Amino acid sequence: MRMRCMCLVIHAPEDLRLEEREVDEVGPGQVLVRVGMGGICGSDLHYFNHGGFGTVRIKEPMALGHEVAGTVEAVAADVTGLKVGDRVAINPSRPCGACRYCWEGLPNQCLEMRYYGSAMRMPHVQGAFRNLLVCEATQCFKVAEGVPLSVAALAEPFSVGLHGVSRAGPLLGKRVLVAGCGPIGVLAIAAARLHGAAEIVATDIVDEPLAIAARMGAHETINAAKDAGWVARNSADKGSFDVMLECSGNQRALRDGLEVMRPRGVIVQLGLGGDVSVPQNVVVAKELSITGSFRFHSEFAVAVRILNEARMDFSPVVTQTFPMSDAVRAFQMAGDRQRAMKVLIDFAQAA
Amino acid sequence: MRMRCMCLVIHAPEDLRLEEREVDEVGPGQVLVRVGMGGICGSDLHYFNHGGFGTVRIKEPMALGHEVAGTVEAVAADVTGLKVGDRVAINPSRPCGACRYCWEGLPNQCLEMRYYGSAMRMPHVQGAFRNLLVCEATQCFKVAEGVPLSVAALAEPFSVGLHGVSRAGPLLGKRVLVAGCGPIGVLAIAAARLHGAAEIVATDIVDEPLAIAARMGAHETINAAKDAGWVARNSADKGSFDVMLECSGNQRALRDGLEVMRPRGVIVQLGLGGDVSVPQNVVVAKELSITGSFRFHSEFAVAVRILNEARMDFSPVVTQTFPMSDAVRAFQMAGDRQRAMKVLIDFAQAA
Amino acid sequence: MRMRCMCLVIHAPEDLRLEEREVDEVGPGQVLVRVGMGGICGSDLHYFNHGGFGTVRIKEPMALGHEVAGTVEAVAADVTGLKVGDRVAINPSRPCGACRYCWEGLPNQCLEMRYYGSAMRMPHVQGAFRNLLVCEATQCFKVAEGVPLSVAALAEPFSVGLHGVSRAGPLLGKRVLVAGCGPIGVLAIAAARLHGAAEIVATDIVDEPLAIAARMGAHETINAAKDAGWVARNSADKGSFDVMLECSGNQRALRDGLEVMRPRGVIVQLGLGGDVSVPQNVVVAKELSITGSFRFHSEFAVAVRILNEARMDFSPVVTQTFPMSDAVRAFQMAGDRQRAMKVLIDFAQAA
Amino acid sequence: MRMRCMCLVIHAPEDLRLEEREVDEVGPGQVLVRVGMGGICGSDLHYFNHGGFGTVRIKEPMALGHEVAGTVEAVAADVTGLKVGDRVAINPSRPCGACRYCWEGLPNQCLEMRYYGSAMRMPHVQGAFRNLLVCEATQCFKVAEGVPLSVAALAEPFSVGLHGVSRAGPLLGKRVLVAGCGPIGVLAIAAARLHGAAEIVATDIVDEPLAIAARMGAHETINAAKDAGWVARNSADKGSFDVMLECSGNQRALRDGLEVMRPRGVIVQLGLGGDVSVPQNVVVAKELSITGSFRFHSEFAVAVRILNEARMDFSPVVTQTFPMSDAVRAFQMAGDRQRAMKVLIDFAQAA
Repeated sequence: MRMRCMCLVIHAPEDLRLEEREVDEVGPGQVLVRVGMGGICGSDLHYFNHGGFGTVRIKEPMALGHEVAGTVEAVAADVTGLKVGDRVAINPSRPCGACRYCWEGLPNQCLEMRYYGSAMRMPHVQGAFRNLLVCEATQCFKVAEGVPLSVAALAEPFSVGLHGVSRAGPLLGKRVLVAGCGPIGVLAIAAARLHGAAEIVATDIVDEPLAIAARMGAHETINAAKDAGWVARNSADKGSFDVMLECSGNQRALRDGLEVMRPRGVIVQLGLGGDVSVPQNVVVAKELSITGSFRFHSEFAVAVRILNEARMDFSPVVTQTFPMSDAVRAFQMAGDRQRAMKVLIDFAQAA
Repeated sequence: MRMRCMCLVIHAPEDLRLEEREVDEVGPGQVLVRVGMGGICGSDLHYFNHGGFGTVRIKEPMALGHEVAGTVEAVAADVTGLKVGDRVAINPSRPCGACRYCWEGLPNQCLEMRYYGSAMRMPHVQGAFRNLLVCEATQCFKVAEGVPLSVAALAEPFSVGLHGVSRAGPLLGKRVLVAGCGPIGVLAIAAARLHGAAEIVATDIVDEPLAIAARMGAHETINAAKDAGWVARNSADKGSFDVMLECSGNQRALRDGLEVMRPRGVIVQLGLGGDVSVPQNVVVAKELSITGSFRFHSEFAVAVRILNEARMDFSPVVTQTFPMSDAVRAFQMAGDRQRAMKVLIDFAQAA
Repeated sequence: MRMRCMCLVIHAPEDLRLEEREVDEVGPGQVLVRVGMGGICGSDLHYFNHGGFGTVRIKEPMALGHEVAGTVEAVAADVTGLKVGDRVAINPSRPCGACRYCWEGLPNQCLEMRYYGSAMRMPHVQGAFRNLLVCEATQCFKVAEGVPLSVAALAEPFSVGLHGVSRAGPLLGKRVLVAGCGPIGVLAIAAARLHGAAEIVATDIVDEPLAIAARMGAHETINAAKDAGWVARNSADKGSFDVMLECSGNQRALRDGLEVMRPRGVIVQLGLGGDVSVPQNVVVAKELSITGSFRFHSEFAVAVRILNEARMDFSPVVTQTFPMSDAVRAFQMAGDRQRAMKVLIDFAQAA
Repeated sequence: MRMRCMCLVIHAPEDLRLEEREVDEVGPGQVLVRVGMGGICGSDLHYFNHGGFGTVRIKEPMALGHEVAGTVEAVAADVTGLKVGDRVAINPSRPCGACRYCWEGLPNQCLEMRYYGSAMRMPHVQGAFRNLLVCEATQCFKVAEGVPLSVAALAEPFSVGLHGVSRAGPLLGKRVLVAGCGPIGVLAIAAARLHGAAEIVATDIVDEPLAIAARMGAHETINAAKDAGWVARNSADKGSFDVMLECSGNQRALRDGLEVMRPRGVIVQLGLGGDVSVPQNVVVAKELSITGSFRFHSEFAVAVRILNEARMDFSPVVTQTFPMSDAVRAFQMAGDRQRAMKVLIDFAQAA
C-alpha cells in the first residue's frame, strides 16, 4: 500500500483544492522529503488568479509550487551524501541532460525541461506544494543548522536573482537600478549587493516593498508614482546607470530605465511582461543591451551556500506564513503588494 | 579673398538647393579636399523627404552629407603623412576628445560630437556635400591606387556595418540573420562575411535589394513578404540563428527575428525605427540580447583598409551616380528601393 | 569471419609497422569508412621519433593517426544522413558526454576523452591510420564534391587553428602575430584571415614555411633567425600586436611575442612546449593574457564547411603524399621543415 | 617665501633621509594637503633595501611613497567640491590624458604616466611621503567621517586588489585561490569577498599573514610550506579553482596554482616576480589564462567608497604605525613578514 500525501491542486482560476494523492515510490537515486515550507511565486499566483499567463493555461488539474524546503524522510539505498533528517532546499529544475542546450551547458534552456508546477507542457508537470515529495537526491541541497526552512525556501527565487546578476557581468564599481521590488526584485538587490555593486537604486510604485528593498541593500529607494523628477535627475550626460535589473515586467519601468541608462549600459530583463513598446532609437543611439534572464542553473548551489553562510539577513523577505489548510487565504494575501512580499505555506503545521 | 565652393543645402522638406559658400581657411592640422563622390544616406533622405526624423528637425539651412571621398588639394604646413594629390576617404566623425565617453574609449558616444550634416545640435553641423571641404588631416584615410572614389565613398556606411559586427562578438561558426537589405544591410552582410560568419541569411520585402545581398555574401535570401513559412522553417528547437543584424528598423522584422533566434542569441540593432512592440516574454524565456549599434569609431580605418585590399567586390552596392547639379533627382532615386541601393553624387562632374 | 585491414602501428621509437588487424563490427549508429588520406601530425611524429612527449609514452603497440578522410563503405541500419559512397572527414574526438566538462559545453576538456592515436590513457586509444575504420556516424562530416580527400584530411588541424582563433575573441581590426609556421601555424593564419584579421604577420626561423604562410594569408613574413630588428621595429609605444597565435611552443618566440604585444593583448598558446621562462613583470605591466587552446569542439563542423565552400585554396599546405607502404619515409619527410609542411599517407594507393 | 615641508627621500639602498624641501605653489585646480598617514608599499621597500627592482633603479634622490591620506589645508580659487578641513585619500596616479591608451580608456597603461615615488622615468617622479603635498583636486577623494586616515591610506593598495578582481571577471559562484598574503593579497581577498566569491582559499608560507587573510575573508588558509598535500587535494578532475589571484610573484606558487586550476580557469597575475618557469603544456591542455593586472584606474573611487561605507573591517591590515622621524625603523619592520602586514608612517605625529 502506498503512502498518501496532501497536495495543493489548481483546477481552474480561484479553484485551488487540498487533495490527497498517492506518494510515488522512492526509486534509485531518489529521496522522500517531508516538505516544510513552500513559497508562493508569481506564476503560482497567475495560475490561481487567471488560470495561467500568456499562452500557458491549465488544461488539467495541476499541483502548484516550486519553492520548497523540507526534511529528508527516506533515502534510496544507492544514495550517498544525504541521510534521514537532513534539512534540504529543493531545486525544482529537472533538465533532460540530453538535448543540445543541456550539452552546451545551458540546461535552463533545456528542450525537455520538467519544472515543478508548470503548465507549459502537456501533461503538466505536477508541483511541489505537498507535504511529502519524492525527488532526485541531486535536487536536494543541504541547509545549514540554524537556517530556518522559511529562509531555505527562498533558495529558488534567490537563484533567479543571482542568475540575473550573472547575466549583467561584473558589478564592480557599477551603479545598478532595480525596477520592481517584488520578491525577485528584492532578492536581486541582495544578489547585486553581495556581488559588489557600488550603488543600488530601487524603484517601485508602492512604498511597502521599497522599505524591504532598503533592508535588502538598496542605497536609495524611489517611488516612481510619486517622484516625477527621478528620471530627469538621473539622465544627465545621457544617463547614469551602468546596469538595470528589470524585475517589474512593466513597460513604463523599462522605458524610464532606457532614459537613465548610460551608453553601453546593460538591462537584464527578469520581469515577464507581455508586449512592451520599446524606443528603438534610444537602444541604438546609446548602444544599450536588453538581455533576458530565465530561471537559473548553477546558481541554485550558490544561493544555498549564501543562505547557509548567512552573509545577509534574508528574513525581511518573508512577510506571512499560512498553514496548508489556509492555502487559499495565503494566495489571496500574496496578491496584496502593500502587505505581502513573499508568502509561505507551512506544510508541516496543522491549521 | 576666400575660395568659394558649391554646397547642397537643405532648407525644408524637398527644398534642396545648390548654393555657393565660402571655403574655410586651411588651419593648422587641416587639409583642403576636392570632394569627388558622396553617398546619400538614409538620414540625408529623411531630411530631404521629411525635414528630419523623430525629434531631430532642420531648424536652419544645413549642408547635407557625410559619406564622401575626394582628392587632397592643399595641406597645412604642419601636416605630415598627406600630400597634394592623395585620394582620401573622409571620416565625418569629430568627437570632442575631452568628455567622459571620449576618455573611456567610446568616442562614438561623445557628448559634444560634431558629425557632418546632422541637425541633432543647434547650430546644426554643416555637411560634406560640397565640392571643396576643409577638414582635419586626421579625418583623411588614404585610398589605394585602383580603388575608385565611388567605392571609397562607401567607407562610412561600411564602417557602420563593421561596428555592428563588432557588437555581435565573434562570428566563427555562427549562423547570422540580416534583416533589411538597404545599404547598411548589404554592407553588414559583407562585414559578416569577411569576419567569418558560417552562414548568412538575408531577408527583405523587396526582391531587388535581396539580389545585391546575395552578391555581397548572403548564402540564402528570403523575401519575407512572399515566403510566409520562413519563420516556422527556422524556429525549430527554439530557433536556429546565433546572431541577427537588424538593419530595417521594422517592427515585424524584429519580432520575426526574435522567433528564429536560438537561446542566448544576440540581436544587434542597427536600423533606426521608432517605438516597436517587443514580446518581453520571448526575450526573457530565450535569454536573448538586443544590443544597439551606433555609428562607429576605429572601424573607419578598418573599412578603408578592407576597401583598399579589395578583399571583396563592393561595386554592386553603388547603383546610380548623378552629377551635383542633378542632386534632387539623385535624392528622388535614392528613395526607390526597387531601383536604387546606394546613390552617389559626383561633385566633380559637370551636369 | 571478420574483415581485415592494414594499420600503421608504432611499437617503439622508429619502429613503425604496417600490420594486419581485424576490423570491428559495424554496430548501431556506426559506419565503415574506407580511409583515403591521413595527415601526419606533430604528435604522430613525436611517437615515431621519441616514443612520446613529456610524460606521455607508448606502453603498448598503438595505431597512429587522427587526421583522416575517406569514403563510406557500409552503414548500420539505424544510421540516417549518410550513405555508401559518401566522402567524409572524420572527427577523431570522442568525448564521453557524461562528465562535468561535457555537460558544461567543454567536451574538449572531457575527463574520459578517447582521441584517436593517443597514448595519454592506458590502454592506449588506437588511431585511424588504417585502410578500413569503423566509427560513429556522428564523427563523419560530408565532403563536398570537388574537394579532394587530401584537402578534407586537413579538417582536423584546421579545426585546431579555428579553435585558437575562437579563443582570441573577435579579430575585427586586429593586428595578429602568428609565431611558428608549421601546419597548425599556417592553418591558424588561414583561420585568422577568414575571420577578418586586419593584418597578419608570420614569423619562423625557416624560410620555406614562411613562403607557405604568405600563400595562406600572412601580409608579412619574418625570418626571426635572420631579421634581428623585428622585435624593436614592432615594440614602439609598448607594442603593436593585439593578438598572438603562438604555434611554435618555443620559448624565444613567446618572449619576443611578449615584447611586441600591446597592453591588454591576448596571446593564444597553441604550441606545446615544455617549461618556458616567462618574464612575469612584462605580463603584469602590460596586462597581457596568455591563454591556452587545446584541440577543438564545434570547430570541426566549421572547418569542413569552410573547406567545402572553398573560401580559400588550402592545397599549399599539403606538400607530399606517400603510399601506405612507404609510411616510414613519410614520417621521415614530415620531420624536414625545409621540404615538408603537411605530409599525407595515401591509404588507398598501392605502393 | 615658500612654505617648507619634510620629505622622506631615498638616496641609495638603506640611505633614507628626512629632508626639508620647498612646497610647490598651489596652482589652478590644485590643493594643499597636510598628509596624515602613508603606507609603505613593496616597491618603497625595494628602493629602500635594494635601490630598485629589475631595471628600475634610483639614479637621483627621490621622495618615496604613494599610499597617503591627509587633510586639505588650502584650495585654489577655482576648485569646487573640496574645502579646507576635508579629509582625503590621494590617488597617486597621474596619466597624461593625451596618449593612445588614455584615449582608449586604459589610463593605467598611459605612455607618460607620472606615478608618485617611481624611478621608472628620468627625472624620477617624486613621491608623497611628506607632511605637505600639493596635488590636483581630482586626485583627492573624500574620506567619510568615522573612517580613520590609517584606513583611508589603504585606498591605493585596495584599488590594486579591486583591479585584479575586475580582471578576473564575475566571481559569482566561483572558487578563488589567493596565493601570497602580503598587503595586496589580503586586500585582494577582501575585494573578492566583497564581489561575491563563493569560496576563497588563501596560501602563503608564513602563518601570521594567513591569520590576517582569514580575518579579511578567506574561508580556508593553507601554509604551503607545511601542508605538502594541498595541491593533490585540490587537483582532482583536472583541478578545482575557477580563479587565482597570484599575489606572490613566486614561481612555485604559480606552478602549484596551474595544477589546481580547473580547465578554462583564469589566473590574474598581480605579484611582480622576475622570470618564472611556466609549464606550457599545462596552460595549453587545460586552456588556462594567465592575465596581468597592473595598478588600477576607476577602482580608486570604488575603493574609497567601500572604505567609507565600512562594508568590512579593514583595520586588521594595518599592523604598525611609526612617526615620520622613525621612518627607517618603519621600513625595517615592513620587511618582517612574521610581524608586519601594512606598516604606516604617521606624518602628523611628533617622534
